[in-house]
Amino acid sequence: MPSQLETAMESLIMVFHRYAGKEGRSGTLTRRELRLLMENELSGFLKSQKDPGTVDRIMKDLDANGDGEVNFEEFVSLVVGLSIACEACYREQLTKTQSWNL
Amino acid sequence: MPSQLETAMESLIMVFHRYAGKEGRSGTLTRRELRLLMENELSGFLKSQKDPGTVDRIMKDLDANGDGEVNFEEFVSLVVGLSIACEACYREQLTKTQSWNL
Repeated sequence: MPSQLETAMESLIMVFHRYAGKEGRSGTLTRRELRLLMENELSGFLKSQKDPGTVDRIMKDLDANGDGEVNFEEFVSLVVGLSIACEACYREQLTKTQSWNL
Repeated sequence: MPSQLETAMESLIMVFHRYAGKEGRSGTLTRRELRLLMENELSGFLKSQKDPGTVDRIMKDLDANGDGEVNFEEFVSLVVGLSIACEACYREQLTKTQSWNL
């Protein structure tokens, strides 16, 4: 049985390919596929953004090689950025809880 | 209910903190904590490595700020590297399967 970490890594690959296979090149996300992915998989984050151009801005930031599509490496950098932000919040909460318990 | 991608991101944070909290500073992995994490969570990868110094080598590679411990950002770079390697294999298999079906 895969470990929790292996399952997480598999999920990153599966989610990416679920959307990347919808249109255009099958191994990359078009702007529309990225929007769909974010609306379905990162809806909480997307709702927290007041700028309606968030997906377009992220698309531009992620598309490191400038080909107008997002490959898996570029997609993972979005996941990393969000995970690091979430982990910082988690650590802050943990510290608060620990200081309450002292 | 969290999406598959949100669950994966949460897993990265939870797995890291499950091991980081065992000894030393609670927000970082010592060499021993990293070894434990890799033995339990990445056992398939670890078994595929013939070099018995794999964990030490990875520890050295990950510890970007040279403080002898691995923080979440440094840990995520390991996950990214492995995920990118796995995705490349997945894509290769997908291409093979598609050419068989033609």
